Formats: sequence, structure tokens, C-alpha cells
Amino acid sequence: MDALIDETSSGLGRVVTCVAPVNIAVVKYWGKTNEDLIIPLNDSISLTLSTEHLRARTTIKTIPQSNDITFELNGVTEKLTKRLSRAIQLCREEAVRQNTATQEVVSAGLTIISDNNFPTAAGLASSAAGFACLVCALQHLYGIQGDVSAIVRQGSGSACRSVFGGFVRWAKGHREDGNDSIARQLFPASHWPELRVLIVVVSDHKKETSSTKGMQTTVETSDLLKFRTEVVVPKRCEDMERAIEKRDFPSFAELTMRDSNQFHATCLDTYPPIFYLNSTSQEILMLCHDYNQKKGAATVAYSFDAGANAFLFTLNKSVPEICGLLQARFGVTDFKGDPVSDFCLHEEHGSSISGSKTKDVVKYVIVTKVESYSRCSNSLKVLLVSPLLKYSWTSLGR
Amino acid sequence: MDALIDETSSGLGRVVTCVAPVNIAVVKYWGKTNEDLIIPLNDSISLTLSTEHLRARTTIKTIPQSNDITFELNGVTEKLTKRLSRAIQLCREEAVRQNTATQEVVSAGLTIISDNNFPTAAGLASSAAGFACLVCALQHLYGIQGDVSAIVRQGSGSACRSVFGGFVRWAKGHREDGNDSIARQLFPASHWPELRVLIVVVSDHKKETSSTKGMQTTVETSDLLKFRTEVVVPKRCEDMERAIEKRDFPSFAELTMRDSNQFHATCLDTYPPIFYLNSTSQEILMLCHDYNQKKGAATVAYSFDAGANAFLFTLNKSVPEICGLLQARFGVTDFKGDPVSDFCLHEEHGSSISGSKTKDVVKYVIVTKVESYSRCSNSLKVLLVSPLLKYSWTSLGR
Repeated sequence: MDALIDETSSGLGRVVTCVAPVNIAVVKYWGKTNEDLIIPLNDSISLTLSTEHLRARTTIKTIPQSNDITFELNGVTEKLTKRLSRAIQLCREEAVRQNTATQEVVSAGLTIISDNNFPTAAGLASSAAGFACLVCALQHLYGIQGDVSAIVRQGSGSACRSVFGGFVRWAKGHREDGNDSIARQLFPASHWPELRVLIVVVSDHKKETSSTKGMQTTVETSDLLKFRTEVVVPKRCEDMERAIEKRDFPSFAELTMRDSNQFHATCLDTYPPIFYLNSTSQEILMLCHDYNQKKGAATVAYSFDAGANAFLFTLNKSVPEICGLLQARFGVTDFKGDPVSDFCLHEEHGSSISGSKTKDVVKYVIVTKVESYSRCSNSLKVLLVSPLLKYSWTSLGR
Repeated sequence: MDALIDETSSGLGRVVTCVAPVNIAVVKYWGKTNEDLIIPLNDSISLTLSTEHLRARTTIKTIPQSNDITFELNGVTEKLTKRLSRAIQLCREEAVRQNTATQEVVSAGLTIISDNNFPTAAGLASSAAGFACLVCALQHLYGIQGDVSAIVRQGSGSACRSVFGGFVRWAKGHREDGNDSIARQLFPASHWPELRVLIVVVSDHKKETSSTKGMQTTVETSDLLKFRTEVVVPKRCEDMERAIEKRDFPSFAELTMRDSNQFHATCLDTYPPIFYLNSTSQEILMLCHDYNQKKGAATVAYSFDAGANAFLFTLNKSVPEICGLLQARFGVTDFKGDPVSDFCLHEEHGSSISGSKTKDVVKYVIVTKVESYSRCSNSLKVLLVSPLLKYSWTSLGR
């Protein structure tokens, strides 16, 4: 996470800008043991995605003359939610406890301005990136030392995984107060530099169940969830760690696909059932299996979160062919993110998709990779922002 | 099951015509412990549907001068499958064992002619009705006494439930030879005469996974199936029996919907996953939940087999309103089966469906009920068929 901090006017007020990434789980989190503290039923493992293409950005300014807190998201003034207030409160308490900020400083009003450089409605885990970003900005504003993932977690569970780059594991922990339910980096992005992520943004008009409400209903009604969290996931997390450690793509791919499917299976076992996969999601999913079968080995993997968009994982060398496949099957022309040279579609794969082209169901594809920064506190950058410039940060940074 | 039997030419050859019903499980069967003997992983409970609207019909004639077996389905000559041959072989052995037919009689060739009065491709459990019908016809042809559901089971697992009318439970049994894996009637249709079944036949162009192949893959790859069959289903069968016994519709409805959803959840947990529900199925399913919520109690229930068609359960008094709902939401005009008078759609339910009409995704609806016959052996009818008339049965029967 990058932080731009204005130290010039610290006597009057401070301004901090943070950037935070999105993360996508390959072993999914769904369900809490404690709703207030956001303690998950099981460990989860995720990949943090590059902030080059997807990022939340938050600027916080202290207003010493006031104690009002205002919050603006993507240019619209929003109400301060209970979770947002709680995250601010926890950061203030931690700063006072660590004696890094005085009661006067933490009592000052705040102007919080956030934006995402991708559509919030696209269901790309914007709240995870947003909460990680907010807490990171508060951390720098108040000078909090150490790991803030437990605070981030209490804002939005999976957001705590966005605090780290690379491959991350969020432990459910064992303490009742949740203080050991924290995220840690398993491996940096440099451990597996060939890995690529393609986000297939799907047209969807359906009203979706929020993940907070959805997982609550699943915990209350699904018989299968209990078995998944207690029996399946502990072993799967170990298998996933080993697959990533060995850079064993076929194992990583199979575990990722199985876990995504099982998560959606528990959604279907919820009463009333929850559907996040639409017919386009199903088509993408089956296309991956067809393609892998033709290649004779798992070459691409999919994962779906609480939405219809597909996150595809593959190795660098296969990106052109998979983009070619998406172009041929869905007529996609809009590829964002890292440039892809020489789209190619081998005849043998082309034959499987002929006559079945489905148009206008995929909006665009973002080609990206795993984020390489290690910790926000290690990548802190100082920026001098003139008070007159105010929030000109929209023209700054990436 | 009705059987029409020609005894006039028993010296030369015999002709038997049988009619058999479709059944729909409310606690689903998915997965075998023994592939050859078709022994299921768990008990299942089903409703046998009226043969008035959906039935398989089979005529078998013995050809003493030959030992060829020919098989015709819906006017097309088909190859004798392994399972078909096996069912014939088992009936012949049983007849010889019971001494109801001589070796000469059971060695004679057979001409088997079957048809369904509903589209085979509609995925309405035609093979279950077909196998039940075939074995029933062979039973009467060879004079076999007693329960044939264990033989029927070895042709097509769920077919054994079609041997009985009303509410049926198929036990998984405990014997290795599968001889105690048989169906029995829990209650006759007269136990709950108000119950109605609406079959919503959905347009679907997708190539479906056959249930035989599908359940095999689920057994091999789904972690959740084991938990379902061992932990969830035993209790659910008891709850379902009690709900039917008490004619407790809300409990029956909730158990039915939960079981359908859990079955499809295990399909999604299969690797690669299996999808039987399409977007129309999902729409029907959510429409039922919306309607029940508006009514304040479970008034309609859905169940989906290995296909996209919906089987809706309701009480007689609610049929007009539910037909009105299907008409308003999907523009259905073709209602087959029992006549429905006074389609009505209350304003309060109409409001939930306005502006969301989806056209041409539902082909037609069949309004039917639970079959009232008790056992085929108790409802045997004798018909004199002149050898010259040959297979004029197409103009006979109902």
C-alpha cells in the first residue's frame, strides 16, 4: 500500500493519501463465528492484485476546529456506516494506547475522500480494498505502529488480506476477542512471477445478495457449510499453501476451481438459496474445463466471488491464447490492464467454440497480476501537499 | 400400473400391455454404493404422478419361433442396452425360479414396443417410467409373483419407486446383494387428496449430463455428497415421512425445496461441476420464495431433478393463483393436464412480478396429481387382443 503524507501543516492538520489493492480468495471465506468482531469460520488464502489496474484510494484530512467526520465515495457524499465509525474508533484508541497521537489529535474532525479506479458496482471486492485503504490512511495519520490487519478485519473481513501483497493467508485464530484472527503474507509476488489474473467483467442485471447478509443466512441454514468449514477447508488450505510454494499450477488450479464451486454450492444450500453465478459465469466456467481438457492439463483456473464476474488464473505464456478464446467465444474487444500481444487461438481450441459465440454478455477483461509491494508501512512515501491545493490528489499518483 | 393381457393365444405367444407412471423425488437419490446392482447411497422419498397425463406404455409379445429381442421406443427401433438386457434376464430367471414359466416360454423371442405420452427429451424421468413399465409387462408375461421393485431397480434406480402409487420410500437397504433395497408405499394418494403437482416444462438447449454419469462423478469428487448422504438425508427422510403423515404442507414444502437445493449443491461441488438449473429454473425458484413470503407461509414448493424443468407442489385451492402467477410472469398460455378454472392473480402478488415478464422460456405447464393405484398386481386387467390386430394397442387404453 502506498501512502502519500503531508507533514507540512501538521500543526494545523494533516493530509494522508493511501492506495490499497483488491484481493481475490482462492480458498474462500464465508461465514463468521462472531458477527461483531468479524471472526471467520475458517482460514482463507488470497492473491493480492496489482494496484496498477485496480485500486481504492483514500485521502484523509484532519479538521482540528471541528469533530465532524464526512465521507465521500466516488464523488458522492455517503453516510458514515457503523463499520466505518468502528474502524475510525479502533484506530483512534490504538493511537492513544501507543501514545503516537494525543487525545486532541484523535478528537479532530476528519474529511475522508475515497474513490476506486474501477466500477464499484462491478462487484470487484471494492469494499475490501476500500476498508484496507481507510485503515492504512488512519494508521499513517495517527502514526500507529505494527500490524493493523485485525482492525481492518473489523471493518470488512476479507479486507484484512488486502493489507499485504503477494499470497496471503487470513487465520481464523483461536481467541474469543479475535486478536489472533489476522492476515499474514505467505509468499511475495516475486515467488511466482509468471502468474497472471484475468478479470472477466460480466453483464449482470440481477439484484445481488450482499455478502454480509448472504453469509449470515448460509451460517443459519446450510448443513453443508459446517462440514465445509470444519472438514474440507483446513486440509485445502494446507494443500493450497503447498501448491503455491511449489509453483505447481495444475494443483493450484484444481484447488482454486474446487473451492470456488464449493463456496457457490453452500450458497445454493442456503435457504432460501443464493445464486451469484449467472448463465455467463457458467459458460466461462465450462469453457475453462473444455480448454483444460483439450490442453491435457489445467492451464487456466476460475474463481467467482459473491458476484457473476470471473477471476481467471493462468501463467504468462498462456495469456494470449486465453484472451483469444474469450474474444472468439464472447466477442470481447475491450481488454484493459497489461497489454497482450499476439492474441492467438489454436485451431484445435477454436473448433470447440465454433457456432456457440455469445455476444454482449462480457463487458470487458482486465489483464493483471499479483501485487508486489510487501507492507504499506514499508512503502510509505511522503508527499508535500499545499493546503491550498486541497484535494488535488486526483491528478496525482497512479 | 395397468396391464392389458392377451390370454387367447397363450400356446403360440402372449401379448401384454402395461402402463407405468413417472415419479418425482422430494428427498433425492444421487449416488450409488454399487454401480452394477444399483444400490443407492441413501434412502429417497417420492410422489408417483397420475398416469392420466404422464405415462410410459409397453407392449411385449413373445415370438416362440425365434429368440430375437427387438425394442422400439416412440416408433424408433433402438439397440437393446445392457440394462434392458439385464432386466429381461432377471425376469426370466425369476419366472423359472418361481416355476411360473417354462424354460421354453422364457427362451422365446420378444417384441417390445414402448412409448411415452410426453416428450422423452423433456427430461421428465421417462427412463424411470419406462423401466418400471417394462418389468411390469415382463412380470405379467411370465406370471412372476410378488414384489419386482428390486428387479426394476437394477434397470434404472429411481424406476423402482414408479412400481407403487401414492407416496413411496425407496430404502437403500443393508444387504450386499441389494435384495433389501426395495421401494414401498408409505401412503396411498388418498391420504392427501388436496396435493397437486404442476410441471413447468422449460426451454433448454443445453446438452445435459446423464444422471448415471453425473452421479458417478459426484460420488468420486464431491466432499459434500458424503456428508449429505450420511448425515443430512437420514434425518430428512424421517422429517419428510412425518410431514406427509400429518399433511403438514409448510413442512413438506420447506423440506422439499431444501432437498432439491442441496442435491443441486452437490452437483456444483462435483469436479468438473454439473449444472442442471438454468436461468429460467432459477427464476421459477425465486418466484416461489417471493410468493411464499408474500403469502406469509409456504404455499408452493419446487423440486428440480437432473434437468431444468420445475416440479411445483401445492394444494388444490392454490392452483388457480399459481397458474395465474406463471401466466403473468412467463406468458404461459399452454396449460395441459387437469383443467384449471378461474386463473386469478391477486394484486399483491401481481406487483412483485410487474415489469419483469420473461417470455418464451417456459414451453407449457402440466397440471396433475398423485397417482391413486396401489400395486400393478392388484390392478391387472385382462384384454383379448386378436393376433390379427397385432399392436393395435395404440388406439386402446387411456
